[in-house]
Amino acid sequence: MTSTLSRAIANYPNRFDPAVLDALPDRLQDTIRRRTEVLGPGYTLIYRTPVEFVSGHGAHLVDRDGNDYLDAYNNVPCVGHAHPHVVEAVTRQMSAVNINTRYVQDSLVDYAERLLATFPAELSKLSIACSGSEANDLAMRVARFHTGAEGIIVTRWAYHGITREVASFSPTLGAGSPLGPNVRLIDPPDPRLVAPGSTLADHMRAQVRGAIDDLERHGYRLAALVTDGAYSSDGIFTDPVGYLKAMVEEVHKAGGVYIADEVQSGFARLGESMWGFARHGVVPDIVTMGKPMGNGLPVSGVVFRPEVSDEFGRNVRYFNTFGGSSIPVAAAAAVLDVFEQENVQQCVLENGTALRAGLEEITRESPYVAEVRGSGLYVGIELVKDRETREPDRALAEDVINDLRDRRVLISGTARGANVLKIRPPLAFDAADVTRFLETFAQVAQDRL
Amino acid sequence: MTSTLSRAIANYPNRFDPAVLDALPDRLQDTIRRRTEVLGPGYTLIYRTPVEFVSGHGAHLVDRDGNDYLDAYNNVPCVGHAHPHVVEAVTRQMSAVNINTRYVQDSLVDYAERLLATFPAELSKLSIACSGSEANDLAMRVARFHTGAEGIIVTRWAYHGITREVASFSPTLGAGSPLGPNVRLIDPPDPRLVAPGSTLADHMRAQVRGAIDDLERHGYRLAALVTDGAYSSDGIFTDPVGYLKAMVEEVHKAGGVYIADEVQSGFARLGESMWGFARHGVVPDIVTMGKPMGNGLPVSGVVFRPEVSDEFGRNVRYFNTFGGSSIPVAAAAAVLDVFEQENVQQCVLENGTALRAGLEEITRESPYVAEVRGSGLYVGIELVKDRETREPDRALAEDVINDLRDRRVLISGTARGANVLKIRPPLAFDAADVTRFLETFAQVAQDRL
Repeated sequence: MTSTLSRAIANYPNRFDPAVLDALPDRLQDTIRRRTEVLGPGYTLIYRTPVEFVSGHGAHLVDRDGNDYLDAYNNVPCVGHAHPHVVEAVTRQMSAVNINTRYVQDSLVDYAERLLATFPAELSKLSIACSGSEANDLAMRVARFHTGAEGIIVTRWAYHGITREVASFSPTLGAGSPLGPNVRLIDPPDPRLVAPGSTLADHMRAQVRGAIDDLERHGYRLAALVTDGAYSSDGIFTDPVGYLKAMVEEVHKAGGVYIADEVQSGFARLGESMWGFARHGVVPDIVTMGKPMGNGLPVSGVVFRPEVSDEFGRNVRYFNTFGGSSIPVAAAAAVLDVFEQENVQQCVLENGTALRAGLEEITRESPYVAEVRGSGLYVGIELVKDRETREPDRALAEDVINDLRDRRVLISGTARGANVLKIRPPLAFDAADVTRFLETFAQVAQDRL
Repeated sequence: MTSTLSRAIANYPNRFDPAVLDALPDRLQDTIRRRTEVLGPGYTLIYRTPVEFVSGHGAHLVDRDGNDYLDAYNNVPCVGHAHPHVVEAVTRQMSAVNINTRYVQDSLVDYAERLLATFPAELSKLSIACSGSEANDLAMRVARFHTGAEGIIVTRWAYHGITREVASFSPTLGAGSPLGPNVRLIDPPDPRLVAPGSTLADHMRAQVRGAIDDLERHGYRLAALVTDGAYSSDGIFTDPVGYLKAMVEEVHKAGGVYIADEVQSGFARLGESMWGFARHGVVPDIVTMGKPMGNGLPVSGVVFRPEVSDEFGRNVRYFNTFGGSSIPVAAAAAVLDVFEQENVQQCVLENGTALRAGLEEITRESPYVAEVRGSGLYVGIELVKDRETREPDRALAEDVINDLRDRRVLISGTARGANVLKIRPPLAFDAADVTRFLETFAQVAQDRL
């Protein structure tokens, strides 16, 4: 089965390899065979032995045999799997009515007001869609309309989504998914790429400037720079902050807009603020968000400066049937409730700091750990064959990920070399979860790191 | 407020005109003002006096004052507003766990098998997404990859969705949203466009052939013909059937694929079959579906012939976070349950036939009704200034729609001239609903038609 897979797919981090299907337990084999029979493109399993869950709570998932797994990977159930407040709010709304935005609904307006209150005043308009891909697609449609330009800049291994437009500026999708001729790639903000004597801000400014020059040389003016606030698929780069201002200055000088993709970094994931861009003291022109917004109900959003979006709104018909309809809005509002009731951002900050400190402690002496990095509850651990050369060690990363999985702790991998451990639990990950994670990680580290 | 709206937006059928906001009741004014303040592009209300609902059941919606409205317009809540079986299934799943497709889940495989059983055997692979737009976007990505070509043919006033790619082949979005240079428009299958002595099949074949020739003359080979199975935004053309075979033959001769967009016409809407294409005795290469699939939960799907999609799957990474996750799949499975339990398709056929017969009876003598058409519970009534010239009468259509709304019956309008009444109730529309609809319609017809 694998022999026919392209390199683009084979390079998927922590992908289950169907070639070893025969080695799995019978029941799992059977389900995977049936699955392969009926599902179309887009269904990659993860782990050497895929997992199946029947229930969840907090940062925990429970399999068919009643085994409890610590979920340190899923960002969608941000306030915790099956959070009762969200379940109750959605059930109540479903039992009453679900209606789209062509009808008046107080709940939609109430939600928009509440969400926008978490943004700087300049960002004052919300459109709701279904997925991060739809959000980024709309953001880019508006950016293109507003600027009348086509050029797009993203980081070298960025992922922004899977519509045709958004895939055209998502290099992580690999060679099977061509980049647009109007797309240029720049370094992620990895301080180790900065030349001696320079600064990260100067480096990133020069990257953007160079991309703009190259676009213009090919006849494209700049529409937008888009960055993922956590540079997730580039390998997770959250610190130091501050360089973003220089990048946005260059973008504005060239007539483009800056789109902050907060699908990964938004909703307090980075602990220090509700939105990743806020850590940089920058106000984007457009902000997109998705995955955790409805704790599992499909909902995403785009927040605009009105001077960027108003003209599009006056000239382009856009109606998103499910976006902004009653059920997803009920879920999204319930998530904001829980953020307030459970003081989520502060918990993320505290538990994330403890998690990173423990991981640094465990890995300090390892010759295979180039760096532990991250912010809040988003942690990357870069595994290498040698600390000097930083040659990626994908095999080691997959061994660690699967050893953890066998000990019932779930993480996965990222980065172009698939050598960065990606630790991104539900925000409900509490102090006891941190302790369990560190204890289990220490066991695996003893064998592998 | 309206003065700044482009013609593209101003032409939106049955659009609420913000210029008359001051004439509305205070509370409604207040909500709409707040809404305008915080919402971005994409939020058009409908009706001269917009409506707000707090609950629903079957084909009925209830406003804040307890008034019951007959919903003859919303296709999303197909098995009925707040259907208890769907509510219960989704609540049960939400309370247990919601997980994405990187994890093994029997429920996803079970659903795919059940849904695919409603298709001809050649269509054997399912991918799940969030919205009809995402489904059509993926369908076209696969069509482009499979054919290596770019040309797209759609009907003259088609609507397929709102991603950048899909908007580029959705002419109904108007001048503010440019069509791709690779897109060609053909007539919808309106028998009145057929020259004397010809047939609808020959006419439609010639339309497709002409579009292919024009594409090739401009350097584009054909990737796909896409048609909406009900030609909803073209004005609703469901009969006669049979011409589709000729169109698909031309498409295949040119190396393209045929995509049946069943977002409107699927799930038994047309009464005679589960899918619109089945009425034509044709098996498409790709089928897309959306709105009614989860009775309000955001979920959509793409069904493929494997020989069209497999190579894409082997070469292109595609992961849809919410598509195929547990909650939307639970909703979609519950919808199929209700289809079986309540014999939905047969009810649609019977109630749709009675509805159309009644409408034909009421409008037979009217000089302003050019045609009552449709199939199952999808009915279009074309209103004209004169039966001979068939000049569209948009004002009359809006009067009828709003008179019905004032009598608490909900429909809306469609077609390029916004002059076709669009009657598309939940499939739960029963015999009593048909009676109430016809009685109310007869009152309005007496004044207006």
